[in-house]
Amino acid sequence: MTSATPRRPSEGAAAAGGDRLRAEMWTPKPAIELSSQRAVRRHNLSIVLRQVVEQGPRSRATIAQATGLNKSTVSSLVSELMEFGLLVERGAEHRGTAGRPGLVVDVKRDGVVALGLEVNVDYLGVQATDLAGGSRYKAMEAADNRGRGVEEVFDALGALAQGALTEVQAQGLRPIGATVALPGLVDLERGALLVAPNLHWKDVPVIDRLREHIDAPNLPLSADNEANLAALAELWEGAATGYSDFVYASGEIGVGGGIVLGGELFRGYRGFGGEFGHTTVEVDGLPCACGSRGCLETRAGLEPLLAAAGLDGEAVSKRGTAKPVAELLRRAQENDEAAVKALTECGRWLGVALGTVVNLLSPQAIVLGGHFAPMSEWLAPVIAAELGSRVLGGNGAVPPVIASSLGAEAAMRGAAATQLRRVLADPTLVAAG
Amino acid sequence: MTSATPRRPSEGAAAAGGDRLRAEMWTPKPAIELSSQRAVRRHNLSIVLRQVVEQGPRSRATIAQATGLNKSTVSSLVSELMEFGLLVERGAEHRGTAGRPGLVVDVKRDGVVALGLEVNVDYLGVQATDLAGGSRYKAMEAADNRGRGVEEVFDALGALAQGALTEVQAQGLRPIGATVALPGLVDLERGALLVAPNLHWKDVPVIDRLREHIDAPNLPLSADNEANLAALAELWEGAATGYSDFVYASGEIGVGGGIVLGGELFRGYRGFGGEFGHTTVEVDGLPCACGSRGCLETRAGLEPLLAAAGLDGEAVSKRGTAKPVAELLRRAQENDEAAVKALTECGRWLGVALGTVVNLLSPQAIVLGGHFAPMSEWLAPVIAAELGSRVLGGNGAVPPVIASSLGAEAAMRGAAATQLRRVLADPTLVAAG
Repeated sequence: MTSATPRRPSEGAAAAGGDRLRAEMWTPKPAIELSSQRAVRRHNLSIVLRQVVEQGPRSRATIAQATGLNKSTVSSLVSELMEFGLLVERGAEHRGTAGRPGLVVDVKRDGVVALGLEVNVDYLGVQATDLAGGSRYKAMEAADNRGRGVEEVFDALGALAQGALTEVQAQGLRPIGATVALPGLVDLERGALLVAPNLHWKDVPVIDRLREHIDAPNLPLSADNEANLAALAELWEGAATGYSDFVYASGEIGVGGGIVLGGELFRGYRGFGGEFGHTTVEVDGLPCACGSRGCLETRAGLEPLLAAAGLDGEAVSKRGTAKPVAELLRRAQENDEAAVKALTECGRWLGVALGTVVNLLSPQAIVLGGHFAPMSEWLAPVIAAELGSRVLGGNGAVPPVIASSLGAEAAMRGAAATQLRRVLADPTLVAAG
Repeated sequence: MTSATPRRPSEGAAAAGGDRLRAEMWTPKPAIELSSQRAVRRHNLSIVLRQVVEQGPRSRATIAQATGLNKSTVSSLVSELMEFGLLVERGAEHRGTAGRPGLVVDVKRDGVVALGLEVNVDYLGVQATDLAGGSRYKAMEAADNRGRGVEEVFDALGALAQGALTEVQAQGLRPIGATVALPGLVDLERGALLVAPNLHWKDVPVIDRLREHIDAPNLPLSADNEANLAALAELWEGAATGYSDFVYASGEIGVGGGIVLGGELFRGYRGFGGEFGHTTVEVDGLPCACGSRGCLETRAGLEPLLAAAGLDGEAVSKRGTAKPVAELLRRAQENDEAAVKALTECGRWLGVALGTVVNLLSPQAIVLGGHFAPMSEWLAPVIAAELGSRVLGGNGAVPPVIASSLGAEAAMRGAAATQLRRVLADPTLVAAG
């Protein structure tokens, strides 16, 4: 029996019985080995790139020592990463001892860049981050997106994105992807917004729409929930870098949440986890934009908070949230009774919902983000008191409540970092561009 | 340089420079290799034992085929497992085809057994399970443990445990461990109950106390939360065998919870996760035994449920819960208005709390256990309706609500299975006995 078609040994053995040896000879083994060699190479490129990105500029010899790869392999990997435009050679390595200074390898600052875009209820934004974590461009636009149609929002978002692309390209940077942060449930696979209660949007194919508005047909695009991306930013470069298991609670027009378990974002089996803002705090409470009643965000969202403090909640979305939040903080600092009382009440509602979260998830820490971060001076002690009375197990079970260090940019930073981390995991992704 | 003391090569190399070769010669390499050989052997013993336990009786040849181990290795491993008293040889393998029937290897039913003990608010129990999952002994004792001191409860639990040990030994079985299911937070390392709100117990060294009451000084003992163990039992052999990610909600005097993520029990960073019963459903609600207010169990615990149905909640604990639960179910079946209304209200409170859980964890399924299981005919539709209105993301985000198939024995089955699984993972644990 002969055949011109290569077959896998199992097929050959099953079909031909005694002809097994010959069937095995036809197996395309070199192809398999080559692909495995490529996988090893990709893996090693990633290891070397991460060394430099995470540990700072260093010599090839230092990289070899730290990674266990041999020096000639490191040299070859560094050369490839330089060809990709990810690393550069420069200056001398600073050493404590005397001796001839060697050349060091560093991240190419004028190399690749990723965009983090954000559509939120009251603003649009874009932020460009380079591989060293440097912010290379940012633009934010206050806008009441509830009052605008999807079309109008995407015209504006597209203009922001295109402006960023044009600007970073003028800086000699190479965009390697963009991720859009969205205030609702996201279908990651389709890059679509399934539902955003506060925007009153349903089933918006975000990635497809954005693509129509930018001149970058091959730029990798993705979308994710804004609080998830902000939680990742806190984990990777913010207040939670020392924690592996935390709950991120974010103050916006709504209330967002992100859960990090074992150093990774937890999405849940169906992919819709982390929706902390829709924790029920009052069974027959106020109607929520999501269609339910008594959700946390009907009490701890920005508008009820400002209203309780005697500030005009309605005017927020037209002017953006920065000014009224600043005004609330100014009044609280001056011990204005209504402002302090409103923050205390907000902290109490947050504490009630977080008590439930802690009883369920027993996290290492709670991180307050969005406008909860600058308010944490007032919120955190009230939350801690509620946790003290509501968490089973007492002191050992109550986690610390800390404030985000990234502020309003957390989601956009996380969005850009998501794209950059794809390249860190597989530097060959930028080879073709 | 010479030395009579063996050193590791790194020490030798660092200390003696050129004397490196000699330092390496002193390294106790054979010991390292032996330990690795033992680890491989242990691993292979586990693979063979699991094959027979999980897939049923089979020939050595079938085991070899299924595991990829060669026949002589399988024969040797089977012999060792037979020496351990875990497997036996018997009968013939049933095959669809003709030919000489071979001997099969099966779990030794009269081999090892594990005890699952339970201290709950209104009963004590013990259950002995053999390696094939067969229940070999069980005893339950209704008792109001709130009305008894710790000493008295341990006298009774010790008597139950000792009775079980004596009985299974009389059956020729060999006890390999016991796990105690407890209605509160458990310190796994110390085997201590940290706090059990409904028992009003704090810091009870359960394992140490139990040890004093049984005549088995070397029997491995452990303790865990009862709802965690019940959730594991549902995963391993109950209603949730098809699910990897679910939330188990259990009706008892209190309300218990267990979270399974990725096929494993989720405890959380601090180890106190899954306390579903202490989800806040009313901010200024009824006082809870835990010290907080408005916890789910103040509404969905058995006593408020019975009281709402017009049954005497107070008498429950003196008679055990089986009779009043049966009476409530009987009345509901006859469409007694108060009984149906009480169950509907209970379902609503559960739905409110589960809505929060689903928004946070996005699970694959919800499993109702304890007395919620026989009540699920009334509870599940109300819960599903609440989830429909409270879960963000609509149909795709709402998980099915199913009933436990193990009933009141779930925690004890899970407790015994925990011990048996230790042996499945490392059969050499029983070698010494």
